[in-house]
Amino acid sequence: MGAEERRRQVGERKRQVLEAHERWRGKVEIAGRAPVTTMEEMAVAYTPGVAEPCMAIAERPDAAFRYTRKWNTVAVVSDGTAVLGLGDIGPLAGLPVMEGKALLFKAFAGVDAVPIMLDTKDVDEIVRTVRVIAPGFGGINLEDISAPRCFEVARRLQAALDIPVFHDDQHGTAVVVAAALTNALKLTGRKAGDVRAVINGMGAAGTACAEMVLEMGVGDIVPVDRAGILTDAPNEVQRSILARTNPRGIAGSLAQALAGADFFLGVSGPNLLTAGLVRTMRPDAIVFALANPIPEILPAEALAGGARIVGTGRSDFPNQINNVLAFPGIFRGALDCRAPRISRGMKLAAARALASLVPEEALSQTELLPTALDARVAPAVARAVIEAARHEGLARV
Amino acid sequence: MGAEERRRQVGERKRQVLEAHERWRGKVEIAGRAPVTTMEEMAVAYTPGVAEPCMAIAERPDAAFRYTRKWNTVAVVSDGTAVLGLGDIGPLAGLPVMEGKALLFKAFAGVDAVPIMLDTKDVDEIVRTVRVIAPGFGGINLEDISAPRCFEVARRLQAALDIPVFHDDQHGTAVVVAAALTNALKLTGRKAGDVRAVINGMGAAGTACAEMVLEMGVGDIVPVDRAGILTDAPNEVQRSILARTNPRGIAGSLAQALAGADFFLGVSGPNLLTAGLVRTMRPDAIVFALANPIPEILPAEALAGGARIVGTGRSDFPNQINNVLAFPGIFRGALDCRAPRISRGMKLAAARALASLVPEEALSQTELLPTALDARVAPAVARAVIEAARHEGLARV
Repeated sequence: MGAEERRRQVGERKRQVLEAHERWRGKVEIAGRAPVTTMEEMAVAYTPGVAEPCMAIAERPDAAFRYTRKWNTVAVVSDGTAVLGLGDIGPLAGLPVMEGKALLFKAFAGVDAVPIMLDTKDVDEIVRTVRVIAPGFGGINLEDISAPRCFEVARRLQAALDIPVFHDDQHGTAVVVAAALTNALKLTGRKAGDVRAVINGMGAAGTACAEMVLEMGVGDIVPVDRAGILTDAPNEVQRSILARTNPRGIAGSLAQALAGADFFLGVSGPNLLTAGLVRTMRPDAIVFALANPIPEILPAEALAGGARIVGTGRSDFPNQINNVLAFPGIFRGALDCRAPRISRGMKLAAARALASLVPEEALSQTELLPTALDARVAPAVARAVIEAARHEGLARV
Repeated sequence: MGAEERRRQVGERKRQVLEAHERWRGKVEIAGRAPVTTMEEMAVAYTPGVAEPCMAIAERPDAAFRYTRKWNTVAVVSDGTAVLGLGDIGPLAGLPVMEGKALLFKAFAGVDAVPIMLDTKDVDEIVRTVRVIAPGFGGINLEDISAPRCFEVARRLQAALDIPVFHDDQHGTAVVVAAALTNALKLTGRKAGDVRAVINGMGAAGTACAEMVLEMGVGDIVPVDRAGILTDAPNEVQRSILARTNPRGIAGSLAQALAGADFFLGVSGPNLLTAGLVRTMRPDAIVFALANPIPEILPAEALAGGARIVGTGRSDFPNQINNVLAFPGIFRGALDCRAPRISRGMKLAAARALASLVPEEALSQTELLPTALDARVAPAVARAVIEAARHEGLARV
């Protein structure tokens, strides 16, 4: 395809996507759940009847989960500083993504998600604002807040609130990567303890994935960032990862890290990996190139370099590794058992449930995970999350 | 009806209202407006397609009104300090009212309203929080925030934001009172300039009604509060009212204020007015007793005292004077013409439009205003608001 033709197609796609958004004028809306067509109905749903649930909740706050939508409502909160691969485009410009998220929350798990766009980048102010607006919500989904601020925001909010605070870019990605890795290990006959892993990109997703891969029992992880193998960490979260990784103490660039590795995880940027570098990895290498929309390496190249299994974040290649496989079911589960937070155990359980939806005999080079449209995904993840919460004593109903 | 029977009825009603709320588990929810049943649809509504409207908005913020729901979305914000007649019951306990409001916004005017319950009573923090979450909203409806804090919150927020900030307890009430008074004057053959008015209750609603009644041309208003005729004002808003009212400089209690008055407006508390006091007013007196759920005087008593027209806030008596006649249409109009604020002119236009829905020949002692269920109300109010905004140069589309 010529450059001209390619440009034409890109332009056509842009027109088509904008036209669809203009037709929708918003991808979510509010819908009523109570009738107000007669004065009697008004008197029940609104004044004076509404005083009764108000007084019941004033007496016993728990009653809010019975008489209001709190039990099913999640705030999708973003300051617009790390939207998709677009960077800091601001809160208003990030709104289409948060509406899309709310759309998926409802479609895949029946969760009512409300986009909340924050006109501040200040960590203290973000934490203060979300704390102040928290009473009406049953959970907080942080989204597209740039690292390292997102770490502190998530940590401080979870410490302050008794509802789950989930940073999807960190924890959603980590859950789906863990599920995909679980199945890739099965398929290539590897044990977690024997795996040498390289994680390229030490932002929100990379550090959370490192945590999760450590939890899975992979002991040999080499963390790599823009400057090469991580030796110095500018923030607490990276420092904590650094202390528990790179057991062989190797130094140098991505190339040094990759030599003899079993598993490459890219949560970094476009075209950072080559077929030549993949060739230096062990046979049957596993390559997850999740940079969006242009991955670290295209599947065809990675396979040409000898990789056995390749996953990307994109829907137009096999093995899509996308958060949408995790967040709807995780919140469905956490809301249904009214967990005060989403623990590591709950995330690991979500990853295991997701992985187990493709039975061992059905696993193949092009079928590592269920697709985003598989209706079994959210219910299975939710069930696993609830079970883990019960097991840890975190289920409140 | 005996006390026993009355108690039984009250208990039965309570059970019925709570049962309805438990069945609904929330009176509003999120609904999707875009399909996500195929990978292609996902790629348009979510990643990677969603990057296009994001970039378009980043380039031109105005595009948010085209590609997102901002154009139709209002935050219904409350700290739960003045909920109905229940007082300071807190943000969580106020949620059923805000959900009810959101329900009415949608049912009567197609507005998407999102309850935002604030876990703070501090004016600075309320202002800061609402400013921070404002980007995703096309308007702010403040609700059930106690006086005098509500005055400062509304004023400072409107100064800071370029979307309408409306305090319904003040401005919604004032619009409907002005409409009802307009028709009551017609019906009793009075001119605004000749009317002697008494306003009992100088909180959020009372001060806003005083402003509006002044705007209508009523020059002789005697403001009364718990301690009697207002002589000293503890806050700026009351001071401003005080400076422009009580031209005859009378002093004393409500009784002194009422002697020879044409119009009593109560936005105070239950049973504060008697038939005997109404008898001291001029013939054909107008009595609006809006305390909820128990008015300042029951209609039968006011009529026995010689009043010609009696209105209350309740749906079970004639002449219901309720905010729901105002806020849906006012926001519909303000959103549709993208006004940066709701001016006095727009509120007066709303009141006139509301009043004119009952033609002069149809006006009667029991038909002063259209009912809350009259489908003509919101569109007529919206049209008038847009026209006034255009006239004042406040319409941005």
